Amino acid sequence: MAAAVEEFGERGYEGATIRSIAERAGVDSALVHHYFGTKADLFAEAAGMPLRPDVAVPAILAGPRDEVGARVVRFVLESFERDEVRRRGVMLLRAAVGGKLGAPVLVGFLSRELLSRIAAHLDVADGELRASLAASQIGGLLMTRYVLRLGVLADAPIDELVARIGPTVQRYLFE
Amino acid sequence: MAAAVEEFGERGYEGATIRSIAERAGVDSALVHHYFGTKADLFAEAAGMPLRPDVAVPAILAGPRDEVGARVVRFVLESFERDEVRRRGVMLLRAAVGGKLGAPVLVGFLSRELLSRIAAHLDVADGELRASLAASQIGGLLMTRYVLRLGVLADAPIDELVARIGPTVQRYLFE
Repeated sequence: MAAAVEEFGERGYEGATIRSIAERAGVDSALVHHYFGTKADLFAEAAGMPLRPDVAVPAILAGPRDEVGARVVRFVLESFERDEVRRRGVMLLRAAVGGKLGAPVLVGFLSRELLSRIAAHLDVADGELRASLAASQIGGLLMTRYVLRLGVLADAPIDELVARIGPTVQRYLFE
Repeated sequence: MAAAVEEFGERGYEGATIRSIAERAGVDSALVHHYFGTKADLFAEAAGMPLRPDVAVPAILAGPRDEVGARVVRFVLESFERDEVRRRGVMLLRAAVGGKLGAPVLVGFLSRELLSRIAAHLDVADGELRASLAASQIGGLLMTRYVLRLGVLADAPIDELVARIGPTVQRYLFE
C-alpha cells in the first residue's frame, strides 16, 4: 500500500502500473493483483475512497435509460448519508480541492475510470463533455451540501434533491 | 482591514457589524463606511474576492427573465477567464473548501448577500432552495473547470458551456 501511494504520487494515476508498484514493493505483480485487485481497486483503497463511482455509475447506466440521472443522484446522496462514507468523502473532497492531496491523481483516476467509461457507454462524439458536466453538478452538490453545508441545501430531503437535480444529470448525459 | 478580518473570523459574517469592526480598530464607524462602503464591500475586500456575485447576480436577475441562467453562467465564466480573477478565485475556492479559510464565514456571506437576495427576487416559497441549487451547479463548474481542471470541461469554449449549463440554472431558478 505504501508503494502504491508513492507510485501514484510520483507517476500519476495513468502513469502508475500494478507492475511498477509491485517492483517498488519488491514482490511479484501477480501477488498485488491477488490481494488488491485492479489498479482502480488499489487506487480506491490507497486514496481512502469511501465509495466506488467507477463501479456504481456504469452499473446504473447499464440499467433502464429513463431516470438514470435520478438514480445517480440518489446513489450519491444515499451513500453520503452514511456517517462513515460522509466523513471520508468530505475529507477526500477537502484534500482534493484544498490541494493537500494530489488533486491531479484523483482527477486522473476519475477521468480514466469514471468519465471515459460513461463516455464509452454514451457512444456519442461529445460523450466526455457530457460526463464531465454531470460530474460538475454532482461534485458541486457534494461540496455545497456536505463540505460547505450551504443553508437549505444541507438540510433538504433526498427525494426533493433527486427530483430537482436528477433531470439535470439526465439532460447532460442524454439530451 | 485587520480589524475586519479578526471580527469576521471571530463572529462570522452575520455576527460582525461595521460598528464592532470600527470599535476594534478604535475609529468611528462612519469612517469605516466612508472608506470601505457596506459590510458586504468590506468583507469582499477582506476576503480578497475577485468578483462580486452579490452585486452582479441581482443585476442579472433584474434584467429580462429569459435566459437569466445563460447570462449568469456567461458572467461567471467570462470573469474567470481573466487571469487575475481566476488566480484569486481559485485561491479562495481552495481555501474555502480545503478548510484553511473560515468556510463558514464565506458561506455566511453568500447566504446573506447572494442567496437571500436571489430568493427575495424570486418571491416563491422555495426560493432559497432554488438559489442554492443554482449555486451548487455554478460552484461545481468552477471547481471542476478551474480548480481540478477536469479534462474536456477545462478546455470547453464558453459558448458551449453557456448553452449546456445555462438551461440548468434557468430551470433551478424558475421552472
